[in-house]
Amino acid sequence: MEFCDCLPMWSALSGAQQGRLLGGLVRRQVKKGAVIHSGSTGCTGLLAVEHGQLRAYILSAEGREITLYRLFSRDVCLFSAACVMRGIQFDVTVSAEKDTGLWVVPAEACRQVMEQSAPLANHINEIMAARFSEVVWLIEQVLWKRMDKRVASFLLEEAAIEGQALLCITHETIANHLGTHREVVTRMLRYLQGEGLVRLARGTVELADEAGLRALQQT
Amino acid sequence: MEFCDCLPMWSALSGAQQGRLLGGLVRRQVKKGAVIHSGSTGCTGLLAVEHGQLRAYILSAEGREITLYRLFSRDVCLFSAACVMRGIQFDVTVSAEKDTGLWVVPAEACRQVMEQSAPLANHINEIMAARFSEVVWLIEQVLWKRMDKRVASFLLEEAAIEGQALLCITHETIANHLGTHREVVTRMLRYLQGEGLVRLARGTVELADEAGLRALQQT
Repeated sequence: MEFCDCLPMWSALSGAQQGRLLGGLVRRQVKKGAVIHSGSTGCTGLLAVEHGQLRAYILSAEGREITLYRLFSRDVCLFSAACVMRGIQFDVTVSAEKDTGLWVVPAEACRQVMEQSAPLANHINEIMAARFSEVVWLIEQVLWKRMDKRVASFLLEEAAIEGQALLCITHETIANHLGTHREVVTRMLRYLQGEGLVRLARGTVELADEAGLRALQQT
Repeated sequence: MEFCDCLPMWSALSGAQQGRLLGGLVRRQVKKGAVIHSGSTGCTGLLAVEHGQLRAYILSAEGREITLYRLFSRDVCLFSAACVMRGIQFDVTVSAEKDTGLWVVPAEACRQVMEQSAPLANHINEIMAARFSEVVWLIEQVLWKRMDKRVASFLLEEAAIEGQALLCITHETIANHLGTHREVVTRMLRYLQGEGLVRLARGTVELADEAGLRALQQT
């Protein structure tokens, strides 16, 4: 897989524009847990994921977290290049959830090509609209969904990503994804265990009844 | 004021592109309370506000609401043209909070010019990033701010928009802005009245102590 596979409109760029993007490209390998971008560390640039998994989240003043969205192979992260996207007024932190290989397009190269190229600008638009949709979905969840359904949805999503029902994940981590406290998650997982939907052990949560979790999520 | 005043990059469009946008332009006057766009009614097109005030909000399955953002003179509403913004997967409702004069750019004209023009595509990007920022701010409020501060913030914002301390607004309307229940707002307003921060009467809320509300908001 090459960098250009992350930009489906690659062939609509001129040779000079392609060269400008490729010229400054930096290849990085990051370990699971590494923080790749945080709002306060300035403008990292556009990130494109080759393999692995990234998480974009916001932090409260008290250090609480909530996941905005995740990035997988071929996904592009815009908010690490907030300095070239006028109008962005919030800080996103991006960290690696798995060992990840990625490309970094320096902010200035990105800005120059976006200014010239309608296809790139429209593609960036499309990515932003998709992320926007995820964040609106998140608001609906937070406002109008009960926490039991949110935990069920999170576990099902996680199992789908991992391709297995046994998840190595702490209650703290789940709370950070969902923007709530560890105690709330622990209480909820115990309730779900009582219902026979999950099995808990030290450092793991196992989905015992995926159909039941799916039914709970949809009630 | 003309339509082109809503697009600061107007002069970067070609004559043909300007003509394409102006050609299909529809001028509308809507009354306070009118619903201008709802997710289910298809693609209204890009809205540009001449004068007045619009509100963009999402609705839950049970009919609850939360305000995503408001639009004033010169503001452009993108999500009423979701059909031309690939990647948007949520339904926004737009209604008039005051008698409003606006222009509608038909979706197809908008799509054609955006595809050709990097300046327009980048400007749309900037608007989307600004709205995105408002929605991330909203998530932070909903997750991490206490309801007393959210009500105080809302009242201060409303008084700033109206240019007066006496607001003609129902508890139900405030609840719909904040994504909560009327009862919650009523309880909170009574608490604020007890603290001497507001004065309540039938159909009105008066800010009795703006400095006090501001202090509460910032604690």
